[in-house]
Parts: sequence; structure tokens; C-alpha cells
Amino acid sequence: MVSDPEGAIDRPDAAEQDLLEPARGLEEAVLDALDAENNERVRTLLAPLHDADLADLLQRLSPEERGTLIPVIRPDLHPEVLAELDDAVLDDIVDLLGIENIAAAVTELDSDDAVDLIEELDADEQRVVLDAMPAEDRTLVEEALAYPEDSAGRLMQRELVKVPPFWTVGETIDYLRHIADMDEDLLPDVFYDIFVVDPKHHPVGTLPLSRLLKSKRPVRVEGIMETAMTLIPATTDQEEVAFLFRQRDLVSAPVVDADGRLVGAITIDDVVDVIEEEHEEDMMLMGGIREDDLYSAAIDTTRSRFSWLLINLGTAVLASIVIGLFDATIEQMVALAILMPIVASMGGNAGTQTMTVAVRALATKELAPVNAMRLIGKELLVGGFNGILFAGITGAVAWLWFGNLAIGLVIGLAMIVNMVVAGLAGTTIPLALERARIDPAVASSVFLTTVTDVVGFFAFLGLAAWLLL
Amino acid sequence: MVSDPEGAIDRPDAAEQDLLEPARGLEEAVLDALDAENNERVRTLLAPLHDADLADLLQRLSPEERGTLIPVIRPDLHPEVLAELDDAVLDDIVDLLGIENIAAAVTELDSDDAVDLIEELDADEQRVVLDAMPAEDRTLVEEALAYPEDSAGRLMQRELVKVPPFWTVGETIDYLRHIADMDEDLLPDVFYDIFVVDPKHHPVGTLPLSRLLKSKRPVRVEGIMETAMTLIPATTDQEEVAFLFRQRDLVSAPVVDADGRLVGAITIDDVVDVIEEEHEEDMMLMGGIREDDLYSAAIDTTRSRFSWLLINLGTAVLASIVIGLFDATIEQMVALAILMPIVASMGGNAGTQTMTVAVRALATKELAPVNAMRLIGKELLVGGFNGILFAGITGAVAWLWFGNLAIGLVIGLAMIVNMVVAGLAGTTIPLALERARIDPAVASSVFLTTVTDVVGFFAFLGLAAWLLL
Repeated sequence: MVSDPEGAIDRPDAAEQDLLEPARGLEEAVLDALDAENNERVRTLLAPLHDADLADLLQRLSPEERGTLIPVIRPDLHPEVLAELDDAVLDDIVDLLGIENIAAAVTELDSDDAVDLIEELDADEQRVVLDAMPAEDRTLVEEALAYPEDSAGRLMQRELVKVPPFWTVGETIDYLRHIADMDEDLLPDVFYDIFVVDPKHHPVGTLPLSRLLKSKRPVRVEGIMETAMTLIPATTDQEEVAFLFRQRDLVSAPVVDADGRLVGAITIDDVVDVIEEEHEEDMMLMGGIREDDLYSAAIDTTRSRFSWLLINLGTAVLASIVIGLFDATIEQMVALAILMPIVASMGGNAGTQTMTVAVRALATKELAPVNAMRLIGKELLVGGFNGILFAGITGAVAWLWFGNLAIGLVIGLAMIVNMVVAGLAGTTIPLALERARIDPAVASSVFLTTVTDVVGFFAFLGLAAWLLL
Repeated sequence: MVSDPEGAIDRPDAAEQDLLEPARGLEEAVLDALDAENNERVRTLLAPLHDADLADLLQRLSPEERGTLIPVIRPDLHPEVLAELDDAVLDDIVDLLGIENIAAAVTELDSDDAVDLIEELDADEQRVVLDAMPAEDRTLVEEALAYPEDSAGRLMQRELVKVPPFWTVGETIDYLRHIADMDEDLLPDVFYDIFVVDPKHHPVGTLPLSRLLKSKRPVRVEGIMETAMTLIPATTDQEEVAFLFRQRDLVSAPVVDADGRLVGAITIDDVVDVIEEEHEEDMMLMGGIREDDLYSAAIDTTRSRFSWLLINLGTAVLASIVIGLFDATIEQMVALAILMPIVASMGGNAGTQTMTVAVRALATKELAPVNAMRLIGKELLVGGFNGILFAGITGAVAWLWFGNLAIGLVIGLAMIVNMVVAGLAGTTIPLALERARIDPAVASSVFLTTVTDVVGFFAFLGLAAWLLL
């Protein structure tokens, strides 16, 4: 919004009150105002909020609370707020707002945000929204939706500024002012680079606005444009796009179709969202969840988590079978049953440490065939060192606890074996999955704990059966 | 680099060969050329690489390989490459290059990158570099270093463009061209916003370059500037800065000192690095590592991982003590020893799923006091549902395995108890840590597994002792 500077200072900007929790205390106030049916106060409270902060607030409320709030703020609800919402909450709000209002909102968004929002709707809702859109906007969105999900084509913005290389700085600036005059909507709300294209619309360079502004009017664009570009094919997966933006410190990049023609531009703000998504995905997968289910109903959450737990039950039963092999041994020396979880659990944790580093390094491409062997070798060493250290500690504990030196030696030996195996499994399992084109974050931990449990119980109980009886 | 478009097309741009792995196969070629002492070929191979890609390549090489490569490429090694390196590898390269060369390199960087680099050096190296720098650059860097580590003050760039609100678009553009003429270095290499300040240098608005370019020369800056700014105090922690940039889709933001004066600007490219750092930190902490030790020597890695494993040993011993309480029971029925790890392990996994969602939601501020109770309630339900499901499955397995219905009932009951407890612990532990101002990612998992192990073994063995004997 554009207004006079004074406006800004008086204006209660959440960021000035508390940078980190713009909405602290606000929820309570809003809910109170809602109970008091003081709609005016509700609007005044929410007016200063940034769209994203309002979206967050809506997400933190319960469905019932949202049900009462939405009708109150509907008139002045920015479409951008919808673009910021989590799927589960968006569905909820779409029902509250009515699909027509959504359609109206979507047309106000830049093409990339519009696509973002429409992606989240189910098929029939999408139809309604698309049909309600003005023809040209619809074409832009439908073209974007034609690209695979999570591809650069979905991410890119169709509105962009392109100029021929032979134009001068002056011509370029006049052109921008001219379009802005004719129809603002032909330009992106905000942009950082101008794209230089040849007559076939192939990008030949990019021109950062700051460089344009540093140059005199008569200077030719081709003389000052950046020619070392990163061209992104529209079908590129968004994860690759994010990697490139990080790696090259890009702020915007040209997207090209199969024939190398410029079809759109991806800007950093969308990429930051992708980085967040990928981050969240990694965390969830390593935590044993398919996707963040914070806003899903209990029953859906139960269903989606069940499968992972079932796999884990399988590995746990496997470990029990291994223990079962030694029931006679345990019967003769119950101390073994008491101590056996220690070896397995230490192996699991050491393995997880190693696996975390490996999975991360694979994701950042820091781990490649050329240095894989070196990492494995190092982790074997680390496993060996820590194995010896904890063999000493645990052995001493067991010895003192049961007044039996032999049992201390057995648990010590088992500890060394399992820690070395953990180092080996923690590196080789992610590497193997990566080679098999499976996301290492998904399955690594279940394979790892299977290995460290089985080896842990087998080594300890096996050595015991062999040396103690 | 600025050159003619043709240059770009012929130029072997790694990104065009393979977006995701610019360096694939290249390492081998480089190493071969090094063995053949064909330095010319080494340089030709590395010339087209982006600075960040070269940095990655250096990191993937072994210390010995780096030792031979660096002297070969030293002459044409961009300072930006150093700014991209991991600490451990940087130390290594600083020794190879000699501190004087580092000093020379630093002066070529923008102030924020220079600070980035100098931060990584140890105290005496810092002195050498700072003394070797031209007075004014040194002041900029020293002022930045005066701010706390990981603060906005460290992150910000000192070079920025500020104009008074009463200037016109025309005056602003002429001013930029003028400075660019006089001394490029007074302007940042690239910038996206112009900052509008009052006579006391307090920011009153920001002006996105695209908006400047859309407006006619006579238009006044104050008429088109963005007054809804996010002012970032220089002492703000970088994690908060990253949160704000994400939340508000910022590309650059003004940094102010204690008196509200504009002292610098933070740009998105630095924030993306912060987001990555924070992401890595979360992953590592949840994996039980203090920091990414991919490039650390085996012995340092062993040391840094030891403490976490020691804590884990404590919790494992605790679990064993619980088992020890029931040694008589186990002696009478060894089947219990065989089955007992299942209950504990299922609880641990269910708890980890819940904890992952909670830790993530706390990090993104999606979980706040207002909705904490709702989440806890939901997770108790989920724990109950899955508990019942797995009680059935596991009970049946145990019953068939040992032909003993009672043991099936006992493990089923224990399973329900532990899954519900896991749901409770998985939410309340992170919430409690957050309230205690401890990063939930650090300690959550160790507390969680302690709870699920202790409760798992106690519930199963306790119920067995009570119902079976």
C-alpha cells in the first residue's frame, strides 16, 4: 500500500511491537471481541496484520472459531491471505467463503500465486474457479497447470519484462513507464531483472534493475546485460530450482520451454517457500510421517501414521525373533535380558548421528561418489573409537552391577561391534537408497534401526551364549 | 561478468549440461589432470564453474588433493569462493593460500560477505586480515563484528542507497548514475530497494526499484514509496530475520540502530543462507549432533558425538533398571524378555512422529499457547486409536507365537498405555522446552525415548507380573 510517511510511523506495525510473534496476545483479544460480537473491534485488531500473519492466525484458530471470524472479515480479506494457508485450513475456508468469492480473489493474484492457490482445490472446485476467471487470466493459469506438479512451470510467474538487446537504457525505461501507464497488470507487481531476448524469444541475457539504473540513457542493453544466465527448463523439479537459487544466489531466473523460448520467470520469494517445503518434507520423513499433519483431523492423522508404525512393528518383531533364538541363554542368566536393550539402543543412536550427516550431505550434494568412500572410512573409525570408549564405560557398569567381569567383557565387545556396524550402516544405507533413486530421508531410519537392533541383540546374546555358558 | 551475448551461448555453462550436479564427472577429470601435472587443463576445466560450485568441489576433495589443486588455481581464485566454504575446509585453505592473500581477497568483497569470511577465521588471523585492509573497509567490518554473532548487524550490508522523501524519481535516477560514475564501490553490486530517510536518517519508506522505474521523472519519491516497512533492529537474531523475510516475502529490509537510524540493509540472498543454516541445525540437533561434522576429522567427530551418546547411555541404563525390577518375573517367563522391546520401540516411534510435528510447528510459530491444548488433545486421541489398532495386531502375534492368550492381552494393554503416553510426551516435552527457552529440537528426543522406554518396559512387565503370575 502506498501512503504518506507519517501514516507508517503511527500505523501499529506488528513487527515493531514484537518481531518474532506478531500475533502474541492478539488471538485472545480477537476471540474476546468475537464473543462480544464487537465486529468493528475485530476488524480494527486485524487491520494492521500482514497477510501472512493473518493466515497464521486463522490456522491457529479452531474450525469453530474460524467459522465465526471469517464472515466478519470477509469483506476486507486479501486474496494473498488465501495463498498463504495450509491445505487443510484452506479447504475449510473455501467452504466458509463460498467458491465464487475464491474465484473473484484468484483473479486479483499474480499468475504464480493464483496457480499456488488453485492447485490446492479439488478438481470440481478448480473448474468453478477457472470458469469464473477472465479468459486471458484463465489461459495463463491453465498453461501453468499443464506443467507437472512441483515443476518450474508451476512455480514461475508469467508476467515478466523482456526487451531486445539493441534497445538503449533510455528506451527500456520509457517502455516500462509506458506500459505502467497503459495497464499496470501487464507488469509483475514487483520484479528485479529485465530479460533480454532475441527475435525468437530465446533469452540472451538478464539485466538487474540496479544495473539499469546505474547506466546512462544512451547505453545499449546488450552492453550491460548479464550473459552468464541460469536457464531453467519449465519441467525442472522445484527442488532443483531451489538448489540453483541457493547455489548461485539468484533473485530471479528465466524459465524456458522445450524450444528454449522464454515462457516465465521464477522469483526468490517463491523459491524461499519451496526451500521451506523441502525442509519440512525432510524433517517429516525422518520423523516417520508422510507429511505435516498438524491441521489434519485425528482420524486422518491416525491413518496416515499407521503404515509407518506397521513397518516399525515388523522390524521390532524381527528383533524379538533374534532374542528368541537365545531364550535358553536368557533363562539361565536373566541379567542378559536386563542389559540387552543398552547395546541395541546405543547402536541406534550412533547410527542415527551418522545417518543424519549422510542424508543431509546427499541433499546438499556435498556427498558424491568421489568422497563417499572417505566418509564411510571415517565413520567406521568414529564408530570404532566411540565403541571402545563406551565398551569401557558400559562394561564397567555391567561388571559392578552384577559383580560379574565376564558379563562386562561381553557387553563391551558387543558394544564395539554394534557401534562399528552402526557407522557402516549409517553411511551405506542412505548412499544405497540415493543410488536406487529413493529419497534417503524416507526409509533410512527404519533400515538403520533394524540393522542396529538385530546386530545389537545378536552380538550381545550370541557372545554371551558362547563365552558365559 | 559483463560481455557480449555470444560469449554466453558458447560458454560451457555447467547449468546447461546438468542442472543438478554441475560438477558430476568433473572432479575425476580435474584429479586426472592434476596427476598429469597438466595445470593448464585444470584451469580450463574449472574456469566455467560458478564460485559456489567450485567451493563445493574443493570441499569434496581430500585435504591432500586440495593441497595440490590450490597452488594451481590460486592466481584466478575469486574471493567469493572463499565466502562459500565450510569452516573446516576454509581453515585448511587459509593455510594453503597464506593469510596475506586472504586479506587481499577480503577487501574485494561486499562488507557483508567480508564479515562472513572474517568471522570464520581465528582471532590472530582476523587481526592480520583487518590490519591489511584499507582503513574505511576495516571500519565497516569492525563495526559489523561489534554486533553479536548471528545478529542482523553481522548479516547486513553497509553499502546501500538512501534518498530524502522530497526527491523526485528523476533526481533519484540521476543521483544513482552520478555515483556509479564517481565510484562504483559506493553502491552495492546489486540492490533491489532504495531506502527513503528523514534528515535524522530514520527510514520513512522503501522504494522497490521496479516501482521507481514504472514512475515518471517528476513524481515525488514520498508519493510512491512503500511505508509499511519491517524495520529490523541490528541486534535481532538471524533466525528472527529469516522468519520475517519468509513471512513477509521480503527481498531486502532496512536495519536500524538503537536510535532507529538506518545503518544497513539485509538482502534475501544472505537470508536464504541463514534459512539453510537453521534448517541444517534443526536436522543435526534432532539427529543428536551438535553441528554438521561432515568435514571434521574422525577424532574431533568422535569427541563431539560422545556427549550425546553418553546421555543416551544414561537413559538406556535407566530402562535396564526398570527391567531389573522384574527379573524374577522374566526368570519365570522368558517370553516376556523376547517381547518387551516391541512395546518400547513402538512407543518411541509413535512419540517421534508426534514430536516431529510439534517441534516443526513451534519453529514456524504455528503452535502457540492458543492452540497447544487442542494439539495435545488430538495427539492423545491419535495415540489411543493407533494404540488400540496395534494392541490388536501385536496381541494376536504374541498369542499365536507363544500360544498364550493372556500374554497377548498383556502386551496389547501395555501397547495402548505406551502409545497414549507417547502422544502426551511427544507434545508436552517440546512445549515445555520451548517455554523454558531451550530449543525443542535439541533435547526433545532424548527425553522422549526415556519416557517411552521406561513406560514401555514398566507397563508391559508390570502388567505381566500382576496378571500372569
